Amino acid sequence: MAALAPRSALITGANRGLGLELVRQMAEGRSAGTRHLLACCRHPDGPRSEALQELAKRHPEVITVLQLDTTDLSSIQKCSQQAGSLLGAGGLNLLINNAGIIAHGTMQTTSPEEMLATFNTNVMGPMNVTKEFLAHLRAAAAASGTAGMSCSKAAVINISSVLGSVDITAQSYSAYPALAYRISKAALNMMTACAAQEFKQSDILFAVLHPGWVKTDMGGEGAEIEASESVGGMLRVMDSLTEKQNGAFLNYKGMPLSW
Amino acid sequence: MAALAPRSALITGANRGLGLELVRQMAEGRSAGTRHLLACCRHPDGPRSEALQELAKRHPEVITVLQLDTTDLSSIQKCSQQAGSLLGAGGLNLLINNAGIIAHGTMQTTSPEEMLATFNTNVMGPMNVTKEFLAHLRAAAAASGTAGMSCSKAAVINISSVLGSVDITAQSYSAYPALAYRISKAALNMMTACAAQEFKQSDILFAVLHPGWVKTDMGGEGAEIEASESVGGMLRVMDSLTEKQNGAFLNYKGMPLSW
Repeated sequence: MAALAPRSALITGANRGLGLELVRQMAEGRSAGTRHLLACCRHPDGPRSEALQELAKRHPEVITVLQLDTTDLSSIQKCSQQAGSLLGAGGLNLLINNAGIIAHGTMQTTSPEEMLATFNTNVMGPMNVTKEFLAHLRAAAAASGTAGMSCSKAAVINISSVLGSVDITAQSYSAYPALAYRISKAALNMMTACAAQEFKQSDILFAVLHPGWVKTDMGGEGAEIEASESVGGMLRVMDSLTEKQNGAFLNYKGMPLSW
Repeated sequence: MAALAPRSALITGANRGLGLELVRQMAEGRSAGTRHLLACCRHPDGPRSEALQELAKRHPEVITVLQLDTTDLSSIQKCSQQAGSLLGAGGLNLLINNAGIIAHGTMQTTSPEEMLATFNTNVMGPMNVTKEFLAHLRAAAAASGTAGMSCSKAAVINISSVLGSVDITAQSYSAYPALAYRISKAALNMMTACAAQEFKQSDILFAVLHPGWVKTDMGGEGAEIEASESVGGMLRVMDSLTEKQNGAFLNYKGMPLSW
């Protein structure tokens, strides 16, 4: 169970897969200090959000389900306003940009529309969410009263993938092309590396995590590990992050990955 | 002067900067084997294409100026048809995706529109041009009658930038953020690495080149080298490429860069 205990955290794509498991472990393993887990998804009242709503009912004192479509700027802005009201002067300690989509095709089979949709969800989404929640992250950094960086102070964790590593493409492409997905995750990695520099003076930590190949709707049944193992690992890694890992690309075991 | 002598080459963004210098050096340094230099730009008859038109007039036997807007799929398809008529069964040996735009801002100052425009020109453009010219590249590979890979046989060279290296972001971001540009070039690097695997069975070589920091409209007056030095270097590098460099990221001196 997670040791990580920020006062507040927001998770996108929280109704399924890794997002749902992140909310579950953070709710069930939380310390007394954790006050707000904002679990965001596109359709909170839809049939694919029932498990999240049940989880929220079991932990009504800490989980709030919010509507958020990360591809819709007005939805992000509305969610940020709602979050601001809930969080108050303490701000948001931890933003986990988890929402993302997969694309399996090669260059020859990937349409321009699929390229743009994947970029929009996997890159523009995290960027726009981060920008719209910056004020809450800054508030959290200011309210912390501590030096240095941590996921309990002010941090943005972008869920990426080892498939975003250009370095391993030659070994892995033929078995699993996923061209648009790889491009989007390489772009997300670059965005995170840039943000890590841009916001280090504000004490906001940025990192990208590879969750492993996980048995979720996205990962498929042939995957290697359960969501519980991936999320348990990622929460331990998040708990361990300091300013030394600002801008890092780590897997769920904490191992650094090449770009 | 360039030793590189493909039978045919196509250069995008050929009316200015590196593109114009590529056409000039390839025309003036060409061997008797070079038959077609297809110099493509958005507005061949516009005021910013006068230097290219003058160059084409000096070398009418080899340079053909074609209209190509790399952000417009129908323009790419039309250009590919025209190129096919000109090139015939010999196909296209060398495609240089040079057209690109710069974006200077940080995450905080870059709008979603600027992000998408930069991705569209710097990533979708090269991808769509490559896909629409694949048949010509395959024809060239088939017509060559030689084993292995080279830029005189069948190759796609994507002009990227060291700013697309995630690895050097921490050292360079504060001096020159260019967030949208960095993200687009990291994405272009990944696309190239993927394509290098996807098309290696077809003997089509893919590589990304960093031209250096060049005194062009894009690079500005404070840049380090002249376009002539950059292009001379890149042509030497292209001339040296074999299947061993398929998927490589090299600067204009031929030095490998980290992703």
